[in-house]
Amino acid sequence: MKKSLYIAVIGCGRLGSILASDLSQQGHEVVVIDRDKSAFARLAIEFSGFSLTGDASEMNLLQAAKLNKAQVAIAVTGKDNLNILVSQLAKNLFQVPIVLTRILDPNKEEIYQQLGLTTISTTKISAAAFLETLQQQLEENLL
Amino acid sequence: MKKSLYIAVIGCGRLGSILASDLSQQGHEVVVIDRDKSAFARLAIEFSGFSLTGDASEMNLLQAAKLNKAQVAIAVTGKDNLNILVSQLAKNLFQVPIVLTRILDPNKEEIYQQLGLTTISTTKISAAAFLETLQQQLEENLL
Repeated sequence: MKKSLYIAVIGCGRLGSILASDLSQQGHEVVVIDRDKSAFARLAIEFSGFSLTGDASEMNLLQAAKLNKAQVAIAVTGKDNLNILVSQLAKNLFQVPIVLTRILDPNKEEIYQQLGLTTISTTKISAAAFLETLQQQLEENLL
Repeated sequence: MKKSLYIAVIGCGRLGSILASDLSQQGHEVVVIDRDKSAFARLAIEFSGFSLTGDASEMNLLQAAKLNKAQVAIAVTGKDNLNILVSQLAKNLFQVPIVLTRILDPNKEEIYQQLGLTTISTTKISAAAFLETLQQQLEENLL
């Protein structure tokens, strides 16, 4: 990622704050959105992007975040329905080339993919990590 | 994992229910604990273990779950402090050989590891998955 991109991160929880901080430190221009102002305290001190407080399902806020000039939008709130709504708006209305959508409920993944979204099921990824670590531990403990 | 093990899964949220269902289907004997009875509806139909409703920080419940005969305990509630408490009890009091602990707040990981726990930071793992997918998409889209 050598070229500097304009990246919108929707949701500044534990996951969103890591992504926004990391991408900002990589030299990208980052805007991060959260409905809760106190969420921005999670950002790294080095975060040099800007933050917007409000409801990401409202057009005004997405326009204020200049989603139309974003190359990347990442929807990582804790609510699946909000992530999918924002992702569809980013993709279809604001023509953002790359949109990544977090899914918490694995049962919804198929529906989301049918909508043409690039989804990442953090629950499934976490489960796989646990099963892998368990396997390693069983081998080490000869169980 | 050919040998059948007795495995306690603490927390039957999205992550815990996947793990309990998967390990049960692998042929292990699984007990899953959650304070909310309705959480067990997330388990796969094929789940053949048993479920206990209650507060996992209470000794009575851990004894009822027969943690003393468990080879594996997996603490995956949505609360870091509860995960660490249960993990320490499982490890030190019930002598469970393998204890895996979920961490949501990456800032706490170092402290947990100093307590000798095998921790899995689902937030960090998720962030890495997003950054990797973004990198792939940037290459595909020539951005």
